[in-house]
Amino acid sequence: MGSTTVTAKTLKDHLNWRYATKKMEAGKSVPQSKVDAIIEAVRMAPTSSGTQPFELIVVTNPEIRAKIAEAASGQTPIIDGSHLLVFAAWDNYTEDRIDTVTQLNVEARGDLPLIHGYYGNLKANYLPRDAEVNYAHAARQAYIALGIALVAAAEQEVDSTPMEGFDPNAVDIILGLRERGLRSVVLMPLGYRKEAGDWLLPMPKVRKSRDAIVTEIT
Amino acid sequence: MGSTTVTAKTLKDHLNWRYATKKMEAGKSVPQSKVDAIIEAVRMAPTSSGTQPFELIVVTNPEIRAKIAEAASGQTPIIDGSHLLVFAAWDNYTEDRIDTVTQLNVEARGDLPLIHGYYGNLKANYLPRDAEVNYAHAARQAYIALGIALVAAAEQEVDSTPMEGFDPNAVDIILGLRERGLRSVVLMPLGYRKEAGDWLLPMPKVRKSRDAIVTEIT
Repeated sequence: MGSTTVTAKTLKDHLNWRYATKKMEAGKSVPQSKVDAIIEAVRMAPTSSGTQPFELIVVTNPEIRAKIAEAASGQTPIIDGSHLLVFAAWDNYTEDRIDTVTQLNVEARGDLPLIHGYYGNLKANYLPRDAEVNYAHAARQAYIALGIALVAAAEQEVDSTPMEGFDPNAVDIILGLRERGLRSVVLMPLGYRKEAGDWLLPMPKVRKSRDAIVTEIT
Repeated sequence: MGSTTVTAKTLKDHLNWRYATKKMEAGKSVPQSKVDAIIEAVRMAPTSSGTQPFELIVVTNPEIRAKIAEAASGQTPIIDGSHLLVFAAWDNYTEDRIDTVTQLNVEARGDLPLIHGYYGNLKANYLPRDAEVNYAHAARQAYIALGIALVAAAEQEVDSTPMEGFDPNAVDIILGLRERGLRSVVLMPLGYRKEAGDWLLPMPKVRKSRDAIVTEIT
């Protein structure tokens, strides 16, 4: 045996490979192991004060996905993909929710005054705030996980599309999110690109120049 | 020569390696090539309709970083790290800004009616909205890039800390952001962990179980 060259894929490769897939191959299912890897990346995503203030709804049921597609101007990747990820943020920070996070920290790190002090302060800051302010903050955290999930999908060579163009109230009703204190924030269908039917695939990726978005203060 | 085993790092490795570094080694500078790789990941991050509605301010100047640290409860990674990334979102969507994005698309993809139609619709939707709604939307896009930047830093074996605990108005004034139609959203110091001084480093990472955050609808 001679030497083996392994070309490891980098983040840059993943960011260049991925694109917002407009047409997915119906009936081609993403293997569970790949879905699991994407979910694990979401689970490990960092969030403010480690609260992980969102849940992930993974929809494979075709009827439910058809209903969600209706609430999203009929965007076909929701139906043609095999899995739909729905990022659903907490509608508010509550004492119970922060206590659960505190307890998880105590279990992993010990019953430290530091932990109780930290989350006590968090409650003093968050609980008096308007629910909309807290929801907006939670939704931002879901976007950290969205960014990481898009990279995770690309690493798995799974196509995906981040989608904001949907009626969140309708999706909340379809999935029964409000009763659970959740609000749908962003959708991410998973599947495989259908090369023949995707108008976006042949187009070059468009990004601003570095100079257009970066200022250095030296 | 025998066979060579290359153990490629995966996204999972990066997510496990990184942590919100609380103490950085003062005077240890992140090489420019690594900073460039992190900036490139921010530049390539996907955003809603490809608007990239934020800029990245890269601050190395020590006096400016000291002022920003003051506006951030004295958090030391801002000073001890070598680079501070400030994600600054558009304060609003404007006709000019969307026209610039349209023009960039036309240059890369051709003068297609599809492109003009798409961004014409976007203007019709975004421009009548309240500036706060548009800013909130732009800020979410910055969080996609933040998530990806945190992965990029880990890939470069550079430590970082996502920071929301600062006075955005003060940082906007220090950096002159408002005059440029920008608002500071989140900070991300880059540097190298100081193992002796970091209380968080020895603690296990805390994350909820998969069951706690994932619902499957089959």
